[in-house]
Amino acid sequence: MARIMYDLCGEDTALRFSPFCWRAALAMRHKGLTLETRPWHFTDTQDIAFSGQGKVPVIVDEDDEVVTDSFDIMTWLDQKYPGPALFGDDMARSRARFIKHWSETTLAPALMKIAIVDVFSIIDPKDQSYFRESREARFGMTLEEFQDTEQGLEMLEKALPPLRAQLEGSSFIDGDHPAGADYLVFGMFMLAYVVHDGALLKSDDPVAQWHERMLDLFGGLARNAPRAASR
Amino acid sequence: MARIMYDLCGEDTALRFSPFCWRAALAMRHKGLTLETRPWHFTDTQDIAFSGQGKVPVIVDEDDEVVTDSFDIMTWLDQKYPGPALFGDDMARSRARFIKHWSETTLAPALMKIAIVDVFSIIDPKDQSYFRESREARFGMTLEEFQDTEQGLEMLEKALPPLRAQLEGSSFIDGDHPAGADYLVFGMFMLAYVVHDGALLKSDDPVAQWHERMLDLFGGLARNAPRAASR
Repeated sequence: MARIMYDLCGEDTALRFSPFCWRAALAMRHKGLTLETRPWHFTDTQDIAFSGQGKVPVIVDEDDEVVTDSFDIMTWLDQKYPGPALFGDDMARSRARFIKHWSETTLAPALMKIAIVDVFSIIDPKDQSYFRESREARFGMTLEEFQDTEQGLEMLEKALPPLRAQLEGSSFIDGDHPAGADYLVFGMFMLAYVVHDGALLKSDDPVAQWHERMLDLFGGLARNAPRAASR
Repeated sequence: MARIMYDLCGEDTALRFSPFCWRAALAMRHKGLTLETRPWHFTDTQDIAFSGQGKVPVIVDEDDEVVTDSFDIMTWLDQKYPGPALFGDDMARSRARFIKHWSETTLAPALMKIAIVDVFSIIDPKDQSYFRESREARFGMTLEEFQDTEQGLEMLEKALPPLRAQLEGSSFIDGDHPAGADYLVFGMFMLAYVVHDGALLKSDDPVAQWHERMLDLFGGLARNAPRAASR
């Protein structure tokens, strides 16, 4: 059997905008593994019920092993497959986990501010009421009240200094070559890349230059991702 | 010869408040190395001119090797001395560098807001004009205008989510045991511990609980540090 990843998609199933699925997809390629993606919508929970939970990414490996959660998938990849490490030893993995938390507590809220309505506008109509209700309950306001691109860009600017300082000193977060921490952080940016029409970073920003390098990996896997604005 | 570290001090030379010196001192103990500290004031630049620069920590090893900069000192310790790794391999070290940048771009500004006048009040009178002039030029305002404990505590609260999330999942930043990244971050908190009279964290905060564990390391090395408030 092929190795399969259930991958969040829009109404246009070519639009793949989940940061967590991007992390897993890039991590797979880092190990030199091929992957068939299966488009999945927020409300297709029955289709992944076999995984014992309701979120993607869900990986079904060639031997039918099922793995979920992007961080757990990367840990599992290091344990099961040879090739360059994603996380490395326990100490290195623990630091990657800090960087994961950093990306989820600082970048993700900024990107949500910038692009939540963009996400809403591209998801399948059958997902819209679930998406609106769950997010509006979380934010305590409507999606339209919540989205504020200018404020989101300010939040992003306040979040970026550690990443910028890091990338002033090395080509990738993980050093001379990209690895687990790069995919953890870059996955976040892929949400905006796919759904949002507008630059987040100035081209002379070391973060923007790293973003370009990440887009180019694996034959331009991320760069060639279909984008809402061009469809 | 003994191993020596030039260590920033107050007018009361027992007060050691440099985050960078704390990083190096704890890293030394992590390697099981002993250390003699030599109290140093901001304006004692002649005393460390032999190091080719003007900041502490400066280490003079038993074989007279001279090393500066807390991150470089930790890298050097891993290269020169056996014992538990501080940083580990290149990838792990690169992630530690991200965490260093995180601590310096988010925690340090918050701690400065909270404690800059406290620092000024304990340094040697001979350092005061250097300290005031250099910091006021950087801030574009007087130290007294800059210090705003309430605002600093808000900045700290905004900075802490990734650290808090990390410490909800493990006892230390680096996993089950403290290592390089823990010292990089904890050093920052030692500035406030030594100079500032007032709690920064609620006792049920995982960050506070980690702070307690860090204070206890190496026979309570940090906990037993003389504090301005109790002198």
